[in-house]
Amino acid sequence: MLFSYDQLYQFTYAVFKSIGCSDEHAATATRGLIAADIRGIDSHGVARLTGYVRLWEAGRVNASPVLQIVHETPSTAVVDGDAGLGLVVAPYAMQVAIEKAKKAGTGWVSVRNSNHFGIAGHHAMMALEQDMIGMAMTNASALVAPTFSIQRMLGTNPIAVAIPAGRQPAFVADFATTTAANGKLEILQRKNADTPLGWVQDKEGNQTTDANILKKQGALLPLGSDREHGSHKGYALGSIVDIFSAVLSGASYGPWVPPFPAYVPMPENMPGQGLGHFFGAMRVDAFRPAEEFKQHMDNWIGRFRSATPAAGQERVLIPGDPEREIEAVRMKEGIPLVDSVVEDLQTLAARFSLQL
Amino acid sequence: MLFSYDQLYQFTYAVFKSIGCSDEHAATATRGLIAADIRGIDSHGVARLTGYVRLWEAGRVNASPVLQIVHETPSTAVVDGDAGLGLVVAPYAMQVAIEKAKKAGTGWVSVRNSNHFGIAGHHAMMALEQDMIGMAMTNASALVAPTFSIQRMLGTNPIAVAIPAGRQPAFVADFATTTAANGKLEILQRKNADTPLGWVQDKEGNQTTDANILKKQGALLPLGSDREHGSHKGYALGSIVDIFSAVLSGASYGPWVPPFPAYVPMPENMPGQGLGHFFGAMRVDAFRPAEEFKQHMDNWIGRFRSATPAAGQERVLIPGDPEREIEAVRMKEGIPLVDSVVEDLQTLAARFSLQL
Repeated sequence: MLFSYDQLYQFTYAVFKSIGCSDEHAATATRGLIAADIRGIDSHGVARLTGYVRLWEAGRVNASPVLQIVHETPSTAVVDGDAGLGLVVAPYAMQVAIEKAKKAGTGWVSVRNSNHFGIAGHHAMMALEQDMIGMAMTNASALVAPTFSIQRMLGTNPIAVAIPAGRQPAFVADFATTTAANGKLEILQRKNADTPLGWVQDKEGNQTTDANILKKQGALLPLGSDREHGSHKGYALGSIVDIFSAVLSGASYGPWVPPFPAYVPMPENMPGQGLGHFFGAMRVDAFRPAEEFKQHMDNWIGRFRSATPAAGQERVLIPGDPEREIEAVRMKEGIPLVDSVVEDLQTLAARFSLQL
Repeated sequence: MLFSYDQLYQFTYAVFKSIGCSDEHAATATRGLIAADIRGIDSHGVARLTGYVRLWEAGRVNASPVLQIVHETPSTAVVDGDAGLGLVVAPYAMQVAIEKAKKAGTGWVSVRNSNHFGIAGHHAMMALEQDMIGMAMTNASALVAPTFSIQRMLGTNPIAVAIPAGRQPAFVADFATTTAANGKLEILQRKNADTPLGWVQDKEGNQTTDANILKKQGALLPLGSDREHGSHKGYALGSIVDIFSAVLSGASYGPWVPPFPAYVPMPENMPGQGLGHFFGAMRVDAFRPAEEFKQHMDNWIGRFRSATPAAGQERVLIPGDPEREIEAVRMKEGIPLVDSVVEDLQTLAARFSLQL
């Protein structure tokens, strides 16, 4: 079924209002959530709306948080999210990073006591209109086994980096630090299909193609899949995201990160508060004149776009190309939702007496 | 053959003095170069000394550079390396980042007009003794094909992140953004052995196990190996390193980065000056009290070290463990050099009338 951006926006906004968000917070959260649907990252959009509502019902999300800076220097801050929706906390913290960068050249904000923030790229891209490079990362509940381990210790811990260009569209990388994001497993589960080798392992650490293996104590693998193909690098990247997001801020980390499904009990002996995020903003003209930088970014992008494709490949992509192209189509033709997501939204509609 | 740290130090220092480095620059360059040998990254240590001398002979390295900051804000700077040895330019720039961080909380330095800087981890680790997180990255001449391409567009573009702990040793990640670093190929070439599938491709973009494929217009693959296993993420990471190191600073980027072998002609129409690097320093107490941070890092490291190992694996490693353990052994027992490297050093000794 196809939905227009406006349809999904109005419905999602009404749901966030129904759980007690202010007008401003509901609008911010809605923009962040639907940014995923519009950019084709279907796993992180309205498909998760019911999940957010359940976290609120379970008392794990505070719909009216008081967001504040609890520590700062000219180029850094720590933000306490007051257990708010990550979709609300993240844009606040990213704005703090941008304001720091205006004065100090760069701004770096670590966040504690937050929740899942949707897609990292949406927050990183806030920097673009200011001629800044934006960065966003977050930890998440543990689904990933370190190299040589069978224990889930890290989340899929994504990293997003958005870099402005001139006439070319911006460079926007946004990726989980695993071989495949959990959303890709969910798609295969719905189709009853197998994963490629190298995405997941079973509870003994053996390779498997079972897309349901996470329900059987299996684990996602770090980017690189195995030691021979560099999984220790993906493990290091996921660890860096965890430490910047949570050890710097005072959030929970590693296997203690709170789970997204509200029915999963909270970990015991949590060493910090809630999920953690990390944001960065670097003013381009803190390094060289913005126009000069953007001309060279255009040259960089143009050169990489014209790299010789391999046989059978049409073209070489720049990070951000696929999402931008999907966005153009979906803004025109609408956003397709699978039946199970539509049913979830209809249940929410009935519950809050709303129209889908 | 085994050499002591002091032996290699004195010889390398004498070589750098012989090409015209000042006492201070020779000492700095020597420490950086031998840090690779002592930490077990043999490809980046004295094995490259002849290569550096050849670059100097070819007029591509300036042995007495005037290093300067050409642009700055409270938390950023651009450094011009004056075509100096990267081994000299990098510690200067990292020190600028550290000084910025002392005042502004963080410091970020992009460098142009430099050369190869040895191992990234050595420079990132300068931050540790200041209770700062250190970061170092560099671009390098193009050996890596982007996802879907057969053209070499990026270097192995490493990223290093060093994070201080309390009683635990520091977390030190230092890795190429490719599936395997070029040094690993060189080891297989010497043994006449094949690579695993997923490290390299041939000139048509086909998978291959030929460790000599780079001499036949083949390419290294980004971390992830192929699209299905996330090579677009490795490609994005290598691109981010390239842009931060060179587009921000005004160095050359992508396929235009100057080659390390002095006999390879320089690329035409270079869009910037020399190689580029990027350094960062973040004061831990710009986020939370340093003691508190270090206690939590100890907890993080201890927890990950005790993650359940897979069958047949002894233990789960923390980034930096293998290099630190090799360092302890080599400081005691000496540094092993293969015959071809010893011969290279003997040639240098004869040329500059030195004792090896």
